[in-house]
Amino acid sequence: MVTMTIESLVSELRSFVGITRKRSIGDMLGYFPDISDKVIADFGEDAAVIDNGDEVLLLAADGIWSVLMDADPEWAGYCAVLVNVHDIAAMGGTPIAMVDVLSVNSPEVTDAVLRGVKRGIEKFGVPIVGGHLHPDTPYSALDVAILGKARKDGVILSSTAEPGDSVVVAVDLDGTVHPSFRINFDSTSHKDRETLARQISSMRALGERKLVTAGKDISNPGMLGTLGMLLETSGVGAVVDLDAIPVPESLNLVDWMKMYPGMGFVVTTRDPSEVVDVFGKHGLSAARIGRVIEERRLEVVKGEERAVLFDFERDRVTGIN
Amino acid sequence: MVTMTIESLVSELRSFVGITRKRSIGDMLGYFPDISDKVIADFGEDAAVIDNGDEVLLLAADGIWSVLMDADPEWAGYCAVLVNVHDIAAMGGTPIAMVDVLSVNSPEVTDAVLRGVKRGIEKFGVPIVGGHLHPDTPYSALDVAILGKARKDGVILSSTAEPGDSVVVAVDLDGTVHPSFRINFDSTSHKDRETLARQISSMRALGERKLVTAGKDISNPGMLGTLGMLLETSGVGAVVDLDAIPVPESLNLVDWMKMYPGMGFVVTTRDPSEVVDVFGKHGLSAARIGRVIEERRLEVVKGEERAVLFDFERDRVTGIN
Repeated sequence: MVTMTIESLVSELRSFVGITRKRSIGDMLGYFPDISDKVIADFGEDAAVIDNGDEVLLLAADGIWSVLMDADPEWAGYCAVLVNVHDIAAMGGTPIAMVDVLSVNSPEVTDAVLRGVKRGIEKFGVPIVGGHLHPDTPYSALDVAILGKARKDGVILSSTAEPGDSVVVAVDLDGTVHPSFRINFDSTSHKDRETLARQISSMRALGERKLVTAGKDISNPGMLGTLGMLLETSGVGAVVDLDAIPVPESLNLVDWMKMYPGMGFVVTTRDPSEVVDVFGKHGLSAARIGRVIEERRLEVVKGEERAVLFDFERDRVTGIN
Repeated sequence: MVTMTIESLVSELRSFVGITRKRSIGDMLGYFPDISDKVIADFGEDAAVIDNGDEVLLLAADGIWSVLMDADPEWAGYCAVLVNVHDIAAMGGTPIAMVDVLSVNSPEVTDAVLRGVKRGIEKFGVPIVGGHLHPDTPYSALDVAILGKARKDGVILSSTAEPGDSVVVAVDLDGTVHPSFRINFDSTSHKDRETLARQISSMRALGERKLVTAGKDISNPGMLGTLGMLLETSGVGAVVDLDAIPVPESLNLVDWMKMYPGMGFVVTTRDPSEVVDVFGKHGLSAARIGRVIEERRLEVVKGEERAVLFDFERDRVTGIN
């Protein structure tokens, strides 16, 4: 096995496309004027939070990367459901329904994408209730939006981590790298609905018990990239001990850090041992991997080695803060 | 001026791409299992209707046709907001917030699309609160989803027209054909927000007063294509008097029937004169243009001439019924 230096990890992650393609998000915000007093939180969150009396409504959208669509349309369709359900779960919410916009250029691709979507619907128990079909596009694409809700006092934001908090991650290590898309780790497609529902509900349990200060689901930027987005949005930094990160047996750390895990969350908390315990009871492998600091940078540590992965004073992940 | 025969109108509309591209929607429904008892209405409606206590939540998504995106990205961005706001309005609802998925291949297109989106947000007063950006696709596309709500007893469906009802249409005739997209009639972009808000709220007023039995906003399939979708979904037919249709002075009927109007609705009602009056008070030109019949076909009449535009026993518009 090749020994990883911390510099090589930092350099690989800094140029990892899963992270770099988030960079232009912040530039768009000027086009989206803030014109509603019902919106509690919006960009930078996994889902927007809208005031609706005692509850909040959660609204999110996710598109499937064309690279994934080309590699495996059925897996892409399944992932469209997976990532949207996670966007609501990460906020401490319950998913209600989805709508989709499907653009297709062949009946075979349509069928494959929709078979994947159907499998996702059945696996996670969230219906698609409408949408739009472009039957004649020169490309294939699938965009899905999701509606959810949460108790107003149980909602988990990305923007509220505070210096002194612990950083805890939770993942399902029981899976394999997807054969047709090597930066996806599939821990869900062979699990039963009850197991997945228990894993997914871990964040709602944490939110309702007010055990976390912030949280996010681990998406395409990988575990540290997702943490970077959370820290940037919160206006803070963190120090992470790489040796504390739970890693599947079959993978090395660098590959794992570029992986979209089937089921994974990163949270900040004042009560890491209780949070690790709650995640564990919901069937996820959780660990305290670091702490939030005031300095706006994400620093990684491995034994005696240290390196800065992101310096938010200079770098940007999304540019949202 | 060329004299139109009713046969030429029927034949032009039957092959009109705005209508024909809706044909494959019905084939998709088998992939979307109905797994939630909270969903009151879904496919075939402008927005899905979800039970939420005393109110209903409305969820819809619309994609912008790539042909429009290529012709004029700024207008496409504006239309993405316009059509989504109409999807909620048509249900008798109030729009709350939107999310978008933007896929772009050039900074110029991005800027143009987003300028259009921003203009739509400001015009219709509905914020975009989140979404997803693909900064690196080989094509440009914009999908938007919208959340709205309505009083449970004021919601207007597409699927509830009944034989004996009158068919009423309402449109804003004060506009012009869009210079860069000749099947869009632009009645909104030069109007002030208050005028548009009054027009948009006409359907909510009708819903809350229970004056209509069904309704829909007039979209890409045009006025008769949209009516066809409503009738098909309701399992009924209609006879329409072409001479009763309000037409802008600058247009002939055939072109007008292929047009996406900036602001237009088609409803069925037992009280056509009251409905025409309500639309008029909201700044729209409305007229009773026909009646709903039990026979599942859309028949058009002009003086002594008659023709069948759609025979739902044989043809399909969307295949949803």
